[in-house]
Amino acid sequence: MVNETPSSGSSGSRSDGGSSSGGESSKDSSRCSTPVLDAERHERLREKMRRRQESGDRWFSLEFFPPRTANAAVNLISRFDRMAVGGPLFIDVTWHPAGDPGSDKETSSLVIANTAVNYCGLETILHMTCCNQTKEEITAHLHKAKHLGLKNIMALRGDPIGEEWEEETEGFNYAVDLVKHIRCEFDDYFDICVAGYPKGHPDAESYEADLRYLKEKVCAGADFIITQLFFRSETFLQFLKDCQAIGITCPVVPGIFPIQGYHSLRQLVKLSKLEVPQEIKDVIEPIKDNDAAIRNYGVELAVSMCRELLDSGLVHGLHFYTLNREVATTEVLKRLGLWKEDPRRPLPWAVSAHPKRRVEDVRPIFWASRPKSYIYRTQEWDEFPNGRWGNSSSPAFGELKDYYLFYLKSKSPREELLKMWGEELISEESVFEVFTCYISGEHNKNGHKVTCLPWNDDPLAMETNLLKEQLEKVNRRGILTINSQPNINGKPSTDPIVGWGPSGGYVFQKAYLEFFTSSEIVTALLRVLRKYELRVNYHIVNARDENITNAPDLQPNAVTWGIFPGREIIQPTVVDPVSFLSWKGEAFALWIEQWAKLYEEESPSRIIIQYIHDNYYLVNLVDNDFPLDSCLWQVLDDTFELLGAPTPC
Amino acid sequence: MVNETPSSGSSGSRSDGGSSSGGESSKDSSRCSTPVLDAERHERLREKMRRRQESGDRWFSLEFFPPRTANAAVNLISRFDRMAVGGPLFIDVTWHPAGDPGSDKETSSLVIANTAVNYCGLETILHMTCCNQTKEEITAHLHKAKHLGLKNIMALRGDPIGEEWEEETEGFNYAVDLVKHIRCEFDDYFDICVAGYPKGHPDAESYEADLRYLKEKVCAGADFIITQLFFRSETFLQFLKDCQAIGITCPVVPGIFPIQGYHSLRQLVKLSKLEVPQEIKDVIEPIKDNDAAIRNYGVELAVSMCRELLDSGLVHGLHFYTLNREVATTEVLKRLGLWKEDPRRPLPWAVSAHPKRRVEDVRPIFWASRPKSYIYRTQEWDEFPNGRWGNSSSPAFGELKDYYLFYLKSKSPREELLKMWGEELISEESVFEVFTCYISGEHNKNGHKVTCLPWNDDPLAMETNLLKEQLEKVNRRGILTINSQPNINGKPSTDPIVGWGPSGGYVFQKAYLEFFTSSEIVTALLRVLRKYELRVNYHIVNARDENITNAPDLQPNAVTWGIFPGREIIQPTVVDPVSFLSWKGEAFALWIEQWAKLYEEESPSRIIIQYIHDNYYLVNLVDNDFPLDSCLWQVLDDTFELLGAPTPC
Repeated sequence: MVNETPSSGSSGSRSDGGSSSGGESSKDSSRCSTPVLDAERHERLREKMRRRQESGDRWFSLEFFPPRTANAAVNLISRFDRMAVGGPLFIDVTWHPAGDPGSDKETSSLVIANTAVNYCGLETILHMTCCNQTKEEITAHLHKAKHLGLKNIMALRGDPIGEEWEEETEGFNYAVDLVKHIRCEFDDYFDICVAGYPKGHPDAESYEADLRYLKEKVCAGADFIITQLFFRSETFLQFLKDCQAIGITCPVVPGIFPIQGYHSLRQLVKLSKLEVPQEIKDVIEPIKDNDAAIRNYGVELAVSMCRELLDSGLVHGLHFYTLNREVATTEVLKRLGLWKEDPRRPLPWAVSAHPKRRVEDVRPIFWASRPKSYIYRTQEWDEFPNGRWGNSSSPAFGELKDYYLFYLKSKSPREELLKMWGEELISEESVFEVFTCYISGEHNKNGHKVTCLPWNDDPLAMETNLLKEQLEKVNRRGILTINSQPNINGKPSTDPIVGWGPSGGYVFQKAYLEFFTSSEIVTALLRVLRKYELRVNYHIVNARDENITNAPDLQPNAVTWGIFPGREIIQPTVVDPVSFLSWKGEAFALWIEQWAKLYEEESPSRIIIQYIHDNYYLVNLVDNDFPLDSCLWQVLDDTFELLGAPTPC
Repeated sequence: MVNETPSSGSSGSRSDGGSSSGGESSKDSSRCSTPVLDAERHERLREKMRRRQESGDRWFSLEFFPPRTANAAVNLISRFDRMAVGGPLFIDVTWHPAGDPGSDKETSSLVIANTAVNYCGLETILHMTCCNQTKEEITAHLHKAKHLGLKNIMALRGDPIGEEWEEETEGFNYAVDLVKHIRCEFDDYFDICVAGYPKGHPDAESYEADLRYLKEKVCAGADFIITQLFFRSETFLQFLKDCQAIGITCPVVPGIFPIQGYHSLRQLVKLSKLEVPQEIKDVIEPIKDNDAAIRNYGVELAVSMCRELLDSGLVHGLHFYTLNREVATTEVLKRLGLWKEDPRRPLPWAVSAHPKRRVEDVRPIFWASRPKSYIYRTQEWDEFPNGRWGNSSSPAFGELKDYYLFYLKSKSPREELLKMWGEELISEESVFEVFTCYISGEHNKNGHKVTCLPWNDDPLAMETNLLKEQLEKVNRRGILTINSQPNINGKPSTDPIVGWGPSGGYVFQKAYLEFFTSSEIVTALLRVLRKYELRVNYHIVNARDENITNAPDLQPNAVTWGIFPGREIIQPTVVDPVSFLSWKGEAFALWIEQWAKLYEEESPSRIIIQYIHDNYYLVNLVDNDFPLDSCLWQVLDDTFELLGAPTPC
């Protein structure tokens, strides 16, 4: 909102509060209900807010603006993922009519908000302004937002074009018109947020008149209020008191702006027509060229103001104007104790926030490191398997043809990838080394750390770290692992590494290992696997779709499950033979799309990767006997022994 | 078939083989597939036969005739349950036009076959004869059979009325007409069996002509043949050779008749116009008044003949004419090693054989000791929850108004029940004693064992025996237990007591306890339960529907589950809060219907039971922390301590 000129709700308007009719909007499908592991997941934002208020759990939210370039969009998405770790109640994405906010461009507000909801699993509010737009345009934007799974709108007036403000008789002149329009056209589907001005809107005749406009917006159907920034806690607390005095009972969330630099503060003050208190100016002016000093001061200031707000007992949540930056806001949140890293995971994978996916509670394990690709490829599904993976012949995965979708794109540029994966590959062993370095965390021959692979955009997960030593050993010998999990025989659901779901439960896993390897190793492996019979299920496939498996009747194998008090069994991760064939296409293509294409055509490096793509197999192994130590390492040891391979020194 | 006059297939008929078109008859519903734990459960009888033949597993089947009285029907159903333990591939029920076989009487062939399929879970063949019946009558019988879940028909001619045999030009004169009619009207829905006569049918012109009629029946669509009884293995083996010689390739199952008495043999011989070999007559005549001696001889004879048949390598299954008796057939089967007690349980409860229930893999725990009542009350369900109990608000249970349905009826007559449960009750403690004796297995004050209770028609299950000591202690003090299971933390699925499902898996349970008790004890119990919080889920309800629970959102709690190689998780038993209220009605009514009504109205005994019914609560407790020792006994100890009740000496 900071990047919006505060604008909504100014000058007089009709007092008719408009429709705010209730009614359940999201219909349950006729299928079995999913066990409610995480009630919040199924609630509307306004309900979540109410629940937090009732339980006394304090929360925070984060505001971002759409970036200007595709590369910046990639970075913003990474930032969403990183900041999601702290547990924001929601984020919001601002709306800039000049930036084509409703288009399908990577940088549009709608696409960024869509990505936040669907691919980052964040509860998201999309801003929307109404002035200088036709009713039809606005309705079309709202329909598009609804279709993408957005459930919350921040209704704003927006900036008039030019300096002069002309009221249009037919159009939308004020935020309240937009609120009414949303309620009229979409009934109770959206949760609606409106802006509040603790000092009164600069265009309003008076503070009191502005408060009355605010009340109109609430009466027209707004569910809660987020305020413009302010510099003193008293400003907000007085405003809150005044809101309540005229009968505004919905939540009023203070907007917090940690000062992060001299210029951004000046620009903001100009746009918002706010006055910076003298005591702040006095501190800042002398240090205006020292960014670090200003940021430190801004953090201090924000922390102390937030503490006052929270200590008042009247404030339950704080909204942060991040300016798309991470450090200052994260610092403030950590110092306030609101940043909750490793918050309870409702399921072992990050859930999507699209309302149609709210019953989703099982996924194939293959996309564990590429959840965004999984969401992309299942976005057309009407139903999500719940509890059972369902008829394994049914899931139709969308094709992943564009490996460069911005939200799937690697965070690292080409030069960096070349440093990690080799400017020049000499043999298959060069590739083994890349995998080994990724696992071990050691520098490669050229002194670079390998922090990602085409199949893993992030460093090793904590859980995988448990297997590090064994993984390193087998990668060195050409078992190129891309996914794995240890077996778990009933650890508490609160376990910091492998736990998920509500407390008081127990989680279980079967050991899993997935890797690329040569046909020579596969031949030996198959001979070894014979003696393990049904203990080890395997699926082995190459790029030419030659497929070898001992899975009975193509049934899915549950490899992660949890038992909770008073609940049905949850089995959120399965090895599904049919999905594996869809995953296989993607996994093989990544060799070419992400790695081979770094090199020139016909170059030796490219030929090596192409050779691996054409000749290696993708293998997955499940040890079904989860109460015993995983036998998968023994299987691989036996395989190497059979091959008579010398032990590496 | 022994009680049918063998009759089908005699005299000439058209050579057109009739329709035997294929095609999948049972459509899968659109719901998630159930994990196939037991492939046989989903197969047609002819496929099961083929699978057994291919795998070399020998099998047996059992023939019964409908009883004449309702009491005899109750006994026959108990016999089905007892003989099911030995693992017959199927049973068959004969058809007697004089006995109103298609009616809804307890003694009709259709009702007995329905009970065998649906309530005893037995694969069942219903015999059907066609002569002297209109096409419409026959079609109506077949539709009714299909509706009841019967999938197999033994197509027979039946007896002509009177001595003279008149061919009807329009009607059904031969079994082949019935076979054609079934295939024409019901396509491939039914598996069809026909009768074969190893010595030729007595009415046939010749042995060769009879073989040709048999081939016509097969060509018309019969899937397999069961033979009339015979006395020498050579008779059957020659017949089998002759069948194959004229191109009969379907299975031919020998019908085995263990001689069980002099009179039954004479009657049979007269009906079937068979001749008893002289060497048998020579043995039997001298001992004709010694039933035991004849039966022993019959068993010897049958065993040696069956051994010859099996040793020939040409026979894979044996069909037994039981004459509705148990001892001789069971003895033969045991000596042949075909009687397989405690065969692998596919699920922890006995599955129903109705095709629409083939996906059923979860049930509420409450009916564990009354599975027939559960099947009765869910017979109208169109779908069965599979894996998930499903939306707990959906299951609509049929009312159980008639507590005297013959297949639900207690095996014990009133006098016996009075001996067990008390001719005269003096106080509530008299009732405590009945429960305590049932658990302990000790005699009651009058020297009688208590082998059943209104809620438990059978003695204590093996699994419950594990809890015997604790159960006895609490029953003595007025915790009147009717259902319980110990906690199990991952025992092999092959465990003889608690195992179920395929081998290589692990089964789990949460400790469960269900009992009636006084409001005084409930008050103390609730105070004790507070400190266990979510560890113990409870549901407490009385006859007036006062309902106390700490179950979240009325969700089901899985209390039995299994993890198998290459499979999804199976959770076949749940504590479902909504179903509990349906069970509650039944459980309270059993006090009155089965117990109070043994006594005269206004009698003190009846008043005591009525008092308990009116004032006691039905309680169930689940200890969610299955890896720890069950805390439920501690909960009850704490409750008694709180009550300050003296420890019984």
